[in-house]
Amino acid sequence: MNMHALRRVHTYRLGRSLALAVPAPTRLLTTAVAPSADQSGPRRTPTLPTTQVNINTEDIAGGRLPPTISRILSPQSSAKFLNRQNAVTIVGWLKSIRTQKQHTFLHVQDGTHPDGIQIVVTGDHSALPAGLSTGCALRITNGTLQPSPEGVKQPFEVHLPPSSTDSPQQGCISLLSPSDLSYPLQKKRHSLDFLRTITHLRPRSNLMSAVQRTRHATQVALHQWFHAHDFVHIHTPILTASDCEGAGETFSVTGPPASKPGDPAFFGGSKHAVHLTVSGQLHLEMFAAAHPRVYTLSPAFRAEKSLSTRHLAEFYMLEAEMAFIESLDPLIDVTGKLVQACARAVSDADVVQVAEILAMQAGERGEDKRARVRAAEARVARLAEGMVERVTYSDAVRYLQGHKRAKKFVYPVVWGNDLQAEHEAVLADDVGGPVCVTDYPAQLKPFYMLPNQPSGEHGQTAACFDMLVPGVGELVGGSLREHDPEKLAAAMRARGMDPEGEDYRWYVELRKYGMGPHGGFGLGFDRLVRHLLGIDSVREVVPVPRYYTECRY
Amino acid sequence: MNMHALRRVHTYRLGRSLALAVPAPTRLLTTAVAPSADQSGPRRTPTLPTTQVNINTEDIAGGRLPPTISRILSPQSSAKFLNRQNAVTIVGWLKSIRTQKQHTFLHVQDGTHPDGIQIVVTGDHSALPAGLSTGCALRITNGTLQPSPEGVKQPFEVHLPPSSTDSPQQGCISLLSPSDLSYPLQKKRHSLDFLRTITHLRPRSNLMSAVQRTRHATQVALHQWFHAHDFVHIHTPILTASDCEGAGETFSVTGPPASKPGDPAFFGGSKHAVHLTVSGQLHLEMFAAAHPRVYTLSPAFRAEKSLSTRHLAEFYMLEAEMAFIESLDPLIDVTGKLVQACARAVSDADVVQVAEILAMQAGERGEDKRARVRAAEARVARLAEGMVERVTYSDAVRYLQGHKRAKKFVYPVVWGNDLQAEHEAVLADDVGGPVCVTDYPAQLKPFYMLPNQPSGEHGQTAACFDMLVPGVGELVGGSLREHDPEKLAAAMRARGMDPEGEDYRWYVELRKYGMGPHGGFGLGFDRLVRHLLGIDSVREVVPVPRYYTECRY
Repeated sequence: MNMHALRRVHTYRLGRSLALAVPAPTRLLTTAVAPSADQSGPRRTPTLPTTQVNINTEDIAGGRLPPTISRILSPQSSAKFLNRQNAVTIVGWLKSIRTQKQHTFLHVQDGTHPDGIQIVVTGDHSALPAGLSTGCALRITNGTLQPSPEGVKQPFEVHLPPSSTDSPQQGCISLLSPSDLSYPLQKKRHSLDFLRTITHLRPRSNLMSAVQRTRHATQVALHQWFHAHDFVHIHTPILTASDCEGAGETFSVTGPPASKPGDPAFFGGSKHAVHLTVSGQLHLEMFAAAHPRVYTLSPAFRAEKSLSTRHLAEFYMLEAEMAFIESLDPLIDVTGKLVQACARAVSDADVVQVAEILAMQAGERGEDKRARVRAAEARVARLAEGMVERVTYSDAVRYLQGHKRAKKFVYPVVWGNDLQAEHEAVLADDVGGPVCVTDYPAQLKPFYMLPNQPSGEHGQTAACFDMLVPGVGELVGGSLREHDPEKLAAAMRARGMDPEGEDYRWYVELRKYGMGPHGGFGLGFDRLVRHLLGIDSVREVVPVPRYYTECRY
Repeated sequence: MNMHALRRVHTYRLGRSLALAVPAPTRLLTTAVAPSADQSGPRRTPTLPTTQVNINTEDIAGGRLPPTISRILSPQSSAKFLNRQNAVTIVGWLKSIRTQKQHTFLHVQDGTHPDGIQIVVTGDHSALPAGLSTGCALRITNGTLQPSPEGVKQPFEVHLPPSSTDSPQQGCISLLSPSDLSYPLQKKRHSLDFLRTITHLRPRSNLMSAVQRTRHATQVALHQWFHAHDFVHIHTPILTASDCEGAGETFSVTGPPASKPGDPAFFGGSKHAVHLTVSGQLHLEMFAAAHPRVYTLSPAFRAEKSLSTRHLAEFYMLEAEMAFIESLDPLIDVTGKLVQACARAVSDADVVQVAEILAMQAGERGEDKRARVRAAEARVARLAEGMVERVTYSDAVRYLQGHKRAKKFVYPVVWGNDLQAEHEAVLADDVGGPVCVTDYPAQLKPFYMLPNQPSGEHGQTAACFDMLVPGVGELVGGSLREHDPEKLAAAMRARGMDPEGEDYRWYVELRKYGMGPHGGFGLGFDRLVRHLLGIDSVREVVPVPRYYTECRY
C-alpha cells in the first residue's frame, strides 16, 4: 500500500455545501441511529454519507446544523418563509401540548428565543405520533410559517396540514426522544429553591435559559469591547503558589498519590501548597509589563464558608490591567464603558422575561408585575446610558454618619473601618445607579495598592475604588499598583509578608525591570449578570453553582 | 447631611471626553505618583482631576488610555500623523539603545505590534534622561511620525528634535521606571529553556509577545464564529464530583480545615472527593438539552506525570455540543470551520516573526531560515483554506500496516489497539494537513459514545473521530453521544460504572427527559495555538505553564 491509497480518502472543502443533514422525517424512534460513516469491509474505499437533503438553504448557520428557532424568526429569514419559498423545519423540545377538536397546539422551545414557537396541527390528533409529552425532543418538517392571529405574543406560528403516513412529503412531526411523564418541569411556577434541587434539568426552565443567553451576550460584549480597544486576553493560571489577597481562605490542590514511597509530590520540590487562584491579578501584571492593555475572564475560587447571595466558592472574574496610567480616571472610565457595553448588548426580551418570571414567583400581578418589569427596563437603560458617579471614601463616611438610617446600622460608620454591605447598599440606593467610592484607607487594602500622597485630616489612603450598584453592592474593585520595588517590599514587610520569599519574589522583581506605573480592576462577572437581570442570588446566574456545602454534579 | 450632599459628587457621562490623561511630560522620576483624586479635608467637595491634555485625539481606544503603537501605526492613524496634524506620544519599553554622533536610536516596544517603533533623537545625547537602559519604561512626547529610510523594515519612525529643558513643549523623553542593569532579556538570542526559567519576565520576549497576540486572535476568532452561529457560551464548572473520562488522573481539591472537630468538609455531606474537571463535556450536555448549540472555552486539568511536549497539568479546552445531529458530518464540518477561522484571524506578521525566532534559535540562516518561514506561511495558508480529509480507523490501520515505516514502529498496528503518537504522526504527515480518523473500536472509547451499527469484518465501532494535524497529533476528539438512557446505563455497567450512583445518575437522567440525538467535540486550544505558530512544545504557548514538577509563580 502506498501514499496513493491513503489519498483515496474523501477530501472536501469546508463551506462548499450548505446542505443540512436531515434524516428521513418519518423516524419515530429514539434508538441509536446509524451514523453515516461507512464501516467498510476489507479494501473497500470509504465513502461519504449521502443522506444530505437541502431543506433550509437560508439557514447557513453552522453549515450542516439544523436551523434554530431564533434564526427562523429573524426578519430576513421569516420574510422568505412567509413567501412560502421554503418549508420550515423546526427542532426543539415540547413545552406544552393542547388539543382541541380540529387543532392541536404544540409549544416548542429550543432555547434560542424567549418565546419559542407555536406549532398548529390541523385535523385528527390521533394521527400525531405517540409519546408526545412535555420535555420530549421532536422535529417538525414541511411546516409553513404564518402570522399569528391577533392577540398572540409571538408574531409567527407554524402550521402543519393533517399528517399522513401515505404522503411523507406532507408536514410531519417526528418524536426524536420521549420524555418520561415524571419530567419535573411541567408548565407551572417553579421556585428558585426547587430549581436548584434539579440543577441538571433547570437549564430547560425559561428563567435559566434567559440567564444563559444573557451571560453569553454579556461575555460577547466584554470580549468585543476589549478586542476593539487593543486589549490582549491572557489565560492566567488557575493553579498557583501565590495568593493575591494575602489573606482569604483558599482551596488546596493535590495530585494523585505517589506510586511508591519517597516519590516527590506532583508539583515537585515546591515547599508551599498549590492552591486554586483567588484572583488572576498578580499574574496579569506579569503581562502588563509586556503589553499595555491586558485582561482575563477566568474562574476564581474562595473557600469562604458563606451562604450569602453574593458569594460562590467558584465564580468568574473579569480582570484588567493597564500600563502607563497614573490616576484612577481611566480605570473608572473603562469600567463604566464595559458595564455600558454589556447593558446595551443584553436582550430586552430576556430582561422582560426574567422580570415577569420573578414577578410570578413573588405572586405579583397586575400593576405590581408591570412595575417590576418597568423597573428592570429602567435599570438596564440607566446602565446603558453610561452614567457613573464617584465619591471619596471620606465623603461617603461623612454622608453615612449623617444619614437618617445611621441609627439602624448594625456596624458603626467610622473612618478607618471598611464599609459594610449595609453601608454600600445605602450609597448605591441613594445614587440609584453605579457609584465609585474612591481612596479608601490604605490599611484596609492589600499590599500592592499605590498609596496616595498624604493629605487631609485622616490617615493614609490608597489610590483605589470600589464600584457599587444597587441590589448587589460591590461590583468592581480596582486600584493603581505600587510600581516602585523598594516601596512595595516595605509595604509587604509591614504586613508580615516576605518580599524575598519564593511566593512573591517574582512579583517584586517585575518592578525592578521597568514595569512603569499601572493599575487595574476586577469585576465580578456573575454579579454583573445578576445586576443586569435583577436576580436576587448569584446562585441563579451560574450554570452549575458551587458554594459552601454544595458541589453536586 | 442629606441626599443633596451626596449628589454633589461629580457625575460624568462616559464617552463625553476623548481626552487622554497625560501627565506633565518632564517628569523623570519613578517614584510613586500622586493620583489626581483629591484627599479632601472636611466638608470639601471632591473634584475631578483636571490634568487631562488632549494629545492624540486619533487614538480614542480606551477613552483616556495612552495610545498603543499598533494604533499609531495603523493606516488611518499614521496618515494623519504624517500630515503633522498631531504630535505623537509613545509609551513603551526600551528594547535597545544605540548612540551615534548626531543621533540616538531608541527601539521601543509595547507588545501590540511585532516590530515596535524606532525613535530617532537628533542632537547631543547628553540631553537624554539618565538611566535609559534595556527594559525601562518610557514616554516620548511631541514626536513627529516620518517614513523610515529605505531598507528599514518598519515603515515609520518617530523623530524628536534636540531636547531642551527650557522648552518643554519640544519633544521629550521621560523615564517612567528604570530597569536594573541585570535585566536578563538583553537583545540577544534566548533559548526557550532559558526563557522558561524566567516565566515572569518572558512575556517581554518577542516570542512570547507574538504567542500572546496569537492566542488572543485565536480566541477572538473562536468566540466570534460561535456567536455568529447562534452558539451559547456556558461556563462549565471547574470543581466537580464527576469524572468525564471515567479514568485519567485527577487533582483533588480540599477546603480549609474544619474550625472545630466534627465540622463537615467544605462541600458538606458529599461522599466522593471533589476534584478539578478533566473535561466540561458532561456538564455541557446538561445545557445541550436546553440550547441546541453550546460551547465552552474553559480550563481543564490532568494530573498525568508526563513531561511530553503535548501535555500540561492545566490547559484550555474548547468544547462544543450540538443537539439534533445524527452523523459525524456536522461535527467535522464545524471543527474544520473553526480551525479555518482561527488560521484566517492569525496575524501573518506574528507567524513570520515566530518562524524567524525559531530559525535563529536553531542556528538557521539564509535559505534554511527562509524555508522555515515559507513552511510556516504555507501551514497557516493550508489551514485557512479549510481543507479537511477523513479516513476510517479501519482504513488507517490497513494503511499503516502496509506503510514503509511500519517496521520502525515501536507499537505494532493492530485493529483494536489505539493509535499511538508515532502512528498519528505518519497519518498527519502523509496527508500534510488536518485528517479526521473516524469510527474507532468502541472498546477504546469512553462509555458515552454512540456505537455504530455493527457491520464489516471487525468488532463494534463508535461514531467518533479524532482530528490529527502534523507536528501535534491529536488536536480534536469528538463523537455522537448515546442518548438512550437504557443503552447508556448498560454501557456504563459494562465498564464497571454505576449508572444509579450519585456521580452519574443525573447524566443518565438527562436522557430520560427527551434529550434527543446529539454530539460534540473537544479541541485542545493550546495545541491549536502551537500548531498555528509551529512551536514544538505546548509549554511555550501558555502564559504560565503548569506541568509535572512545575507550579512556580
